[in-house]
Amino acid sequence: MTFPKISQSYTDPYDYPQGIAFQDGQYLMMRDAKVSVLDWGFLHSDATYDTVHVWDGGFFRLDLHLDRFFAGLQKLNMTIPFDRSEVTDILTNCVALSGYQNAYVEMLCTRGGSPNFSRDPREAVNRFMAFAVPYGSVANPDQMKRGLRIAISDVVRIPPKSVDPSIKNYHWLDLVRGLYDAFEKGAETALIVDTNGNIAEGPGFNVFVVNNGALHTPEFGVLPGITRRTVFDLCRKLDLKVSVGDVSPEFLKGGEEVFITSTAGGIMPVSTVDDVAFGNGKPGPITTRIKTLYWEMHKHPEWATQIEYPTDV
Amino acid sequence: MTFPKISQSYTDPYDYPQGIAFQDGQYLMMRDAKVSVLDWGFLHSDATYDTVHVWDGGFFRLDLHLDRFFAGLQKLNMTIPFDRSEVTDILTNCVALSGYQNAYVEMLCTRGGSPNFSRDPREAVNRFMAFAVPYGSVANPDQMKRGLRIAISDVVRIPPKSVDPSIKNYHWLDLVRGLYDAFEKGAETALIVDTNGNIAEGPGFNVFVVNNGALHTPEFGVLPGITRRTVFDLCRKLDLKVSVGDVSPEFLKGGEEVFITSTAGGIMPVSTVDDVAFGNGKPGPITTRIKTLYWEMHKHPEWATQIEYPTDV
Repeated sequence: MTFPKISQSYTDPYDYPQGIAFQDGQYLMMRDAKVSVLDWGFLHSDATYDTVHVWDGGFFRLDLHLDRFFAGLQKLNMTIPFDRSEVTDILTNCVALSGYQNAYVEMLCTRGGSPNFSRDPREAVNRFMAFAVPYGSVANPDQMKRGLRIAISDVVRIPPKSVDPSIKNYHWLDLVRGLYDAFEKGAETALIVDTNGNIAEGPGFNVFVVNNGALHTPEFGVLPGITRRTVFDLCRKLDLKVSVGDVSPEFLKGGEEVFITSTAGGIMPVSTVDDVAFGNGKPGPITTRIKTLYWEMHKHPEWATQIEYPTDV
Repeated sequence: MTFPKISQSYTDPYDYPQGIAFQDGQYLMMRDAKVSVLDWGFLHSDATYDTVHVWDGGFFRLDLHLDRFFAGLQKLNMTIPFDRSEVTDILTNCVALSGYQNAYVEMLCTRGGSPNFSRDPREAVNRFMAFAVPYGSVANPDQMKRGLRIAISDVVRIPPKSVDPSIKNYHWLDLVRGLYDAFEKGAETALIVDTNGNIAEGPGFNVFVVNNGALHTPEFGVLPGITRRTVFDLCRKLDLKVSVGDVSPEFLKGGEEVFITSTAGGIMPVSTVDDVAFGNGKPGPITTRIKTLYWEMHKHPEWATQIEYPTDV
């Protein structure tokens, strides 16, 4: 019997997005940024992360993303050898070296591993990484114009008694199942429900409904999104009422406008939920107003941290 | 302002376990087996896997592990370019090239990714990998002799309405939280509960209690483990009653013997659950009997698939 040879290095046959990553003191092309198959961040999804976007050469509300990331680390008993200001420098370098004026930037920490493959998480060395890739959005330009078509799936979002949703995490099999359910119904993305059958969130986004001129968004078991929080801030400014609590599918479908929020895309209009249409094929007035103000906020130093780029990029 | 340089390749500062991996037609040293940081199998834990062990140069019940793995692929809408016999060849090669007579062998498939970082899982190219590392056990030799000390955590196992537990998956943050709860209580590992407060499972294992001479094991929301199933087979042979259904913490603590089951360790005795002790510091008679028969099964061609090793390893 003949046996295959052991290759002395791996030849990667795939194409990867452009971008710059940071690992263990090194800045790398995105295609070189890899995690060991044995890292518990992969094998047990034992990891936390946060994503911030860069728009027009500035981070948007970076402080809030750092708050959430460092809080998640603590809740997971993880430590990294960098403080907030060092993480900020690393993220800034990733963006500066990429040259992107608009970028999607992620910081993450995995449980890591140990040389003897110990199953005890206390014996693992935690690993911090970061990367900047071109800005991406949940909704493409066409969907931004006409609104997303969403289907409600009966998949239940992983409940807080199982995984604390304030720890931003990679447990997405529920959301992915919801997506496939939505695709089967001819929709473009999904909302999944909480343990009581109320609307929770979608793959990477929170949801708002405008009902009788006031905004409503789910609270139980959802990620406390930074874009969601920014909508709260804007509502205060606009003197719009916003309530946080249970949103049933019927209540959502009975609203005047529906939009979703994410660091990847901002404020994104919804045109249909299941077979209920909103706004005659274009975003509603409140959605549009909030979206406009959201992007105006990106110009203000209170919320935007400008990045210095190399002059030769 | 000066900027850091971009490294043309990554210098990995960590030590990894020994072993052999397979990726994209290549057999690799374990330290070279890596996943892109952008793979949805990492960023969304959108992946399934199975682990089989090799004992005395033979796979144990490989057919059942392959059944579960291929069923999981189908449920997740994933495809791999290999059939059962080709996956068997790959796993066999990983073990043969490692030279291990006792090994922990994993096959896995991630959603993969796409060159444009598309968030649509249908646009990703799924990626199959496999690896063989030295045999590992949930319980170390000392714990095997005296029994594991377990604490029950009130963390709720991710429910089936969120993630189908028959799809073997990497969503472990609930189990990891349970582990840290157990460590805080001075225990060595954890059992977490189901949505009704009954016992579910622990990190990587199912649990059995012997009560009035009959065996009981949880059913709702647990992984249908192959070792668990092997215990059912042995109970039939031994004419022992085994019932599958709700196991309350009180019922578990009221039993004569408790043991856990996993591909990583087989049949492992439990000495304490919270502050309740079992069996006077040594494994109970039924646990011992099942454990002995379990390892005897490894010698029979009905359950063991012998591996041919290179003669020069």
